[in-house]
Amino acid sequence: MEIVSQHACFGGLQQFYRHHSNEIGLPMKFSVFLPPQARQGQVCPAVFYLAGLTCSEETLAIKAGAQRVAAREGIILISPDTSPRGAGIPGESDEWDFGVGAGFYVDATREPWRSHYRMFSYITCELYPLMVERFGLDRNRVGIMGHSMGGHGALVLALRRQDLFRSVSALAPIAAPIYCPWGETAFTRYLGDRVENWAEYDATELMKRCDHAPYPAGILIDQGLDDKFLAAQLNPHMFEAACAQVGQPLTLRRHRDYNHGYYFVSSFIEDHLMHHAGQLQRCP
Amino acid sequence: MEIVSQHACFGGLQQFYRHHSNEIGLPMKFSVFLPPQARQGQVCPAVFYLAGLTCSEETLAIKAGAQRVAAREGIILISPDTSPRGAGIPGESDEWDFGVGAGFYVDATREPWRSHYRMFSYITCELYPLMVERFGLDRNRVGIMGHSMGGHGALVLALRRQDLFRSVSALAPIAAPIYCPWGETAFTRYLGDRVENWAEYDATELMKRCDHAPYPAGILIDQGLDDKFLAAQLNPHMFEAACAQVGQPLTLRRHRDYNHGYYFVSSFIEDHLMHHAGQLQRCP
Repeated sequence: MEIVSQHACFGGLQQFYRHHSNEIGLPMKFSVFLPPQARQGQVCPAVFYLAGLTCSEETLAIKAGAQRVAAREGIILISPDTSPRGAGIPGESDEWDFGVGAGFYVDATREPWRSHYRMFSYITCELYPLMVERFGLDRNRVGIMGHSMGGHGALVLALRRQDLFRSVSALAPIAAPIYCPWGETAFTRYLGDRVENWAEYDATELMKRCDHAPYPAGILIDQGLDDKFLAAQLNPHMFEAACAQVGQPLTLRRHRDYNHGYYFVSSFIEDHLMHHAGQLQRCP
Repeated sequence: MEIVSQHACFGGLQQFYRHHSNEIGLPMKFSVFLPPQARQGQVCPAVFYLAGLTCSEETLAIKAGAQRVAAREGIILISPDTSPRGAGIPGESDEWDFGVGAGFYVDATREPWRSHYRMFSYITCELYPLMVERFGLDRNRVGIMGHSMGGHGALVLALRRQDLFRSVSALAPIAAPIYCPWGETAFTRYLGDRVENWAEYDATELMKRCDHAPYPAGILIDQGLDDKFLAAQLNPHMFEAACAQVGQPLTLRRHRDYNHGYYFVSSFIEDHLMHHAGQLQRCP
């Protein structure tokens, strides 16, 4: 685990790391923002942030304006890259919505993807324990959030690994990937033709299977109504219906005029970090 | 004047424009953030932001996190590109610190630069009046700030055009370009060998020539002490001495650990916008 660069920011430290991932079988990068409280030795709550298509471990740090709030609230921010890079699979960089930059937070089961494209296990079984070990995360105070493809990832990881995450939120998530072109394309190629194998990576299907609310304190989702991907790709109403069916409290806010990008994300990131801060707060 | 794109952001509107510039003789781009108050028809104070080497009209909007404060305080943010693009001068893109992305906010007098590289006149004589005309700026409530090369630009424009600007601040400015390699290289090629022709673009020299404090309410400068360009290129102490000589109030804050980039800029942008808001406030 090697520091690529680090930068003082709002009294904390924005760090970029590279390490060899056993799950991925390649070097992987991630970013960590340490608030001043963590630098002073306090055990702080942490939030994983999963980024969207074409993004990287740098996107949150550069574009979201999250460090100000994280510094004030004493939250550690951890953001992994969005896919393996350098696997050498022919054509892996040819499409912006599949392959490099588009790992969809799944463990691929099909060739030629299955040996490297294992973002689900990378984050849950390797990066998370590494963060606990190196930064002393309190496993009872870790949340997860994400944007777009990363919103899908955050919801899926939170629903499948409730042992790891205590709070979850998403910005413009791909909320029912089975039922949208992005998800169909990616899941067919990463997971194969059999749709029954896709459900474990679909937040709406996972929620429907719950016999009680998995996050009783509530899930927060923000969605822009001028988002060009909303109608065809995102389907927040399907996740909303699944939450209602299960009795899962959901705050789904629909915002007129906002589109899909980081001008939207940055406008609402403070609300998301406060959502996590509120749910993760405990006496020290 | 054509809108390239616009995005809802913090209740305001982040816009990107392209227009034909008569001063530059080429199309130029700039960005405007309109706070909610401006969209509702209020006349708002405005701050021009000049970006640094390699940056563009997008940099402030993407990296600085300024819209949140501008939306709260009702400030219009205007940020031009950092040089002409597409002039077709051989080698103009070969160096990151000269030519494209490095206009140094001067009007070049030497071939082959002098017909297009006219950023000083572009901003003061063309973009500023255009903004007054199109966005109804109140000429008594316009400030200017910048980062690095843009900090140099902001100080120079503010000192030479006190009729246009009422407040000025800078983050890690090239504060005495005559006495640093970046400035020597750029001014030699844009302005020629005669150093006496450079002084009108050197904030420290311009300040020394003042017979009274040009900004009696004070100038704000922030500087990181872990900035790798500080020792060789920036020279804030020379500007500080010139201010002292003239009686110009200057708040020059030196910050341990901070470097030259936008993790530094974003950490202190709120203080700068509040500096301008305080000096530009007037009864409506």
